[in-house]
Amino acid sequence: MSLSPLLQELISALRTLPGVGPKSAQRMALHLLERDRTGAQTLAEALVQAVEHIGECQVCRNLSERERCGICEDGTRDRGVVCVLESPVDLMAVEQTGGFNGVYFVLKGHLSPIDGIGPDELGLEQLFTRVDGGEVSELILATNPTVEGEATAHYIAEQLQQTHVNITRIAHGVPVGGELEFVDGGTLAHAFAGRRSLKRSADD
Amino acid sequence: MSLSPLLQELISALRTLPGVGPKSAQRMALHLLERDRTGAQTLAEALVQAVEHIGECQVCRNLSERERCGICEDGTRDRGVVCVLESPVDLMAVEQTGGFNGVYFVLKGHLSPIDGIGPDELGLEQLFTRVDGGEVSELILATNPTVEGEATAHYIAEQLQQTHVNITRIAHGVPVGGELEFVDGGTLAHAFAGRRSLKRSADD
Repeated sequence: MSLSPLLQELISALRTLPGVGPKSAQRMALHLLERDRTGAQTLAEALVQAVEHIGECQVCRNLSERERCGICEDGTRDRGVVCVLESPVDLMAVEQTGGFNGVYFVLKGHLSPIDGIGPDELGLEQLFTRVDGGEVSELILATNPTVEGEATAHYIAEQLQQTHVNITRIAHGVPVGGELEFVDGGTLAHAFAGRRSLKRSADD
Repeated sequence: MSLSPLLQELISALRTLPGVGPKSAQRMALHLLERDRTGAQTLAEALVQAVEHIGECQVCRNLSERERCGICEDGTRDRGVVCVLESPVDLMAVEQTGGFNGVYFVLKGHLSPIDGIGPDELGLEQLFTRVDGGEVSELILATNPTVEGEATAHYIAEQLQQTHVNITRIAHGVPVGGELEFVDGGTLAHAFAGRRSLKRSADD
């Protein structure tokens, strides 16, 4: 096909975006060129700015353009509760619930010896130093409920056995709004093992 | 949420792409920043180049960074057959079939008096001048089979009644691979009206 070479370059550049196939890329390119050239310029500028300036927060390893991210600098957040996550996208998911007022530590991955990812790559030394600092009272391990995520959580918990910090793992069970019928066996087993009493205790 | 402002800007810029909602934009932004910063730079550069240099072909009004697009300059294409389309995306769809060897004329819209789109906005004068030039033997009207597309095709055919150019309209009928059961009544009626004989004629 004798397409304009610049248009072809734009289409293949758009295909690097996750979830964008050849048809979507084509539609995006034509949309930008035919109807939203200002939007295209804004996007180009936003990409350049983000790539140039966004690094990681020195405290929690979250994406940030400053030395400390907005959450770590926020005086209203409880610095005693640290939530450990695998990636910034998990952090955004937790933030969007609006129900967590502590701070974070982003591992940027999980332990995976085969890929050469050990404690150093996950910045665990930095996390342990932070725990030793004494400000942290609870460490919530919110790595993914996958084999690697569980192994990472287990490893962190093991390393901190001797400290006085409370170490917790987020609950795994049946998703809210889900139906038992469609939940896999592993999740159901977790849901049963983690069952809670609904009976009021005597001192309520 | 205390997200990095540059990250927020990137996410909202990505949302200007068609078919990209808040979740996809977030996933794209994090993917680019965490795993593909080179891809992000390439995309930014491709956007800037495309917006700056891609204009329209002086002959067929297709997107092109030169005065004449690749198709109009291609000596192997039959300039006697001109396919009239509503938009560059339709042109790409036809090109991708690989079955058309003529040239194009892109209207960039359809007649729509309510929106102030008349013959001038569609460059019809330019099309008629090209037809008058004498090089064109057939004009294939491939506007969309919508009310506006049909009206546009009808208008063009009317204007060229007095010329010796062959004016055709693409066939409308049951899509190949489609099932009659799921085809709408209008399409079925078109399919019946446009039926063709399968019987060999005597001179075959």
